[in-house]
Amino acid sequence: MKRKSNDIPIKKSTALFFDLVTGLSPEVHSKKRMLSDMKGMYSDKDAYEIMLDQQDSLIYEFYELGIPKTPHHLAYGTTILYPGKVGNEYFMTKGHFHQKLATAEVYYCIKGHGMLLMENPMGNVEIQKFSPGIAVYVPPNYAHRSINTSSSGPLISFFAFRADAGHDYKTIETKGFRKLIVEQDGKPKVIDNPNWNR
Amino acid sequence: MKRKSNDIPIKKSTALFFDLVTGLSPEVHSKKRMLSDMKGMYSDKDAYEIMLDQQDSLIYEFYELGIPKTPHHLAYGTTILYPGKVGNEYFMTKGHFHQKLATAEVYYCIKGHGMLLMENPMGNVEIQKFSPGIAVYVPPNYAHRSINTSSSGPLISFFAFRADAGHDYKTIETKGFRKLIVEQDGKPKVIDNPNWNR
Repeated sequence: MKRKSNDIPIKKSTALFFDLVTGLSPEVHSKKRMLSDMKGMYSDKDAYEIMLDQQDSLIYEFYELGIPKTPHHLAYGTTILYPGKVGNEYFMTKGHFHQKLATAEVYYCIKGHGMLLMENPMGNVEIQKFSPGIAVYVPPNYAHRSINTSSSGPLISFFAFRADAGHDYKTIETKGFRKLIVEQDGKPKVIDNPNWNR
Repeated sequence: MKRKSNDIPIKKSTALFFDLVTGLSPEVHSKKRMLSDMKGMYSDKDAYEIMLDQQDSLIYEFYELGIPKTPHHLAYGTTILYPGKVGNEYFMTKGHFHQKLATAEVYYCIKGHGMLLMENPMGNVEIQKFSPGIAVYVPPNYAHRSINTSSSGPLISFFAFRADAGHDYKTIETKGFRKLIVEQDGKPKVIDNPNWNR
């Protein structure tokens, strides 16, 4: 049932099904980020190593449809972020700036609960809560990371951005975000990132 | 609860709620298209006039959030298209080209059943079916119109496009689409538009 390639014909229209309950498409391949792909991203390195020794869990998956990387096209798909924690830090996406820094992105949350953490190179931090029906607009210039603050279900969002925006993962891998979202007293709390690297 | 203006601050992030059941946002004003706004768009002019004499019904509503019209931003929101027919032609949106013709759009259907009718200036016609979970990608250069083929509920989609794309309604108002979606024997059928104006 899967297509051989995610490259969809873009001179014609396309209809793809992304299940509103699971977020998954039976027709195309998702990109999967395992715990082992998240090395160095969680604050508690010991908790990370212990977890990884036990199981290389699936943290999140999303779709890259091979839309041509031009300003006339839009990249779109779903992100499915599973629940869990590394130490007291919730499961999250890597987070990235766009390579074309000044391009926006929009998320429409269809399931689950969490947050979108954003920061721009000037150091401004923005945080919005995700719940079903919430559309979060990421303005140009902001790095963005999803965080699943639920103890049960996945956080699922539909996303769209200009297809030529590109991904700069490296800046966040190197510096981190200025803030972390951790569980304290059973509730999500925003704290300063002790390892933030200016 | 509504904001005074739909203009949202775009140097900061925004979270807006669009109800997954009704498609509506309690926080911002929708644009409403009444039957009286659709003059000349339905094939059966007599049926249109008789209906309008009885009641000026709400055909569809959608959101324009006042996002700055630059290539760095995205316009987004929901479209809610109510069920009904004018003669045997289903309720539909006006449909439009983008003023910047070569810009794409993506729709993510969250509720209802219908179709997206598309055509480009070369005369190529594309039709995709909408049902919950279907994402339809409108490639650059294609005019697009939503059609609600259900006899009961609204057709609701989340949409995104480049904020500077602009709307050219006039071409469709003048020429129409090459195809119509009508009910025949209780089912939707695609037919040639007898009034299509080259």
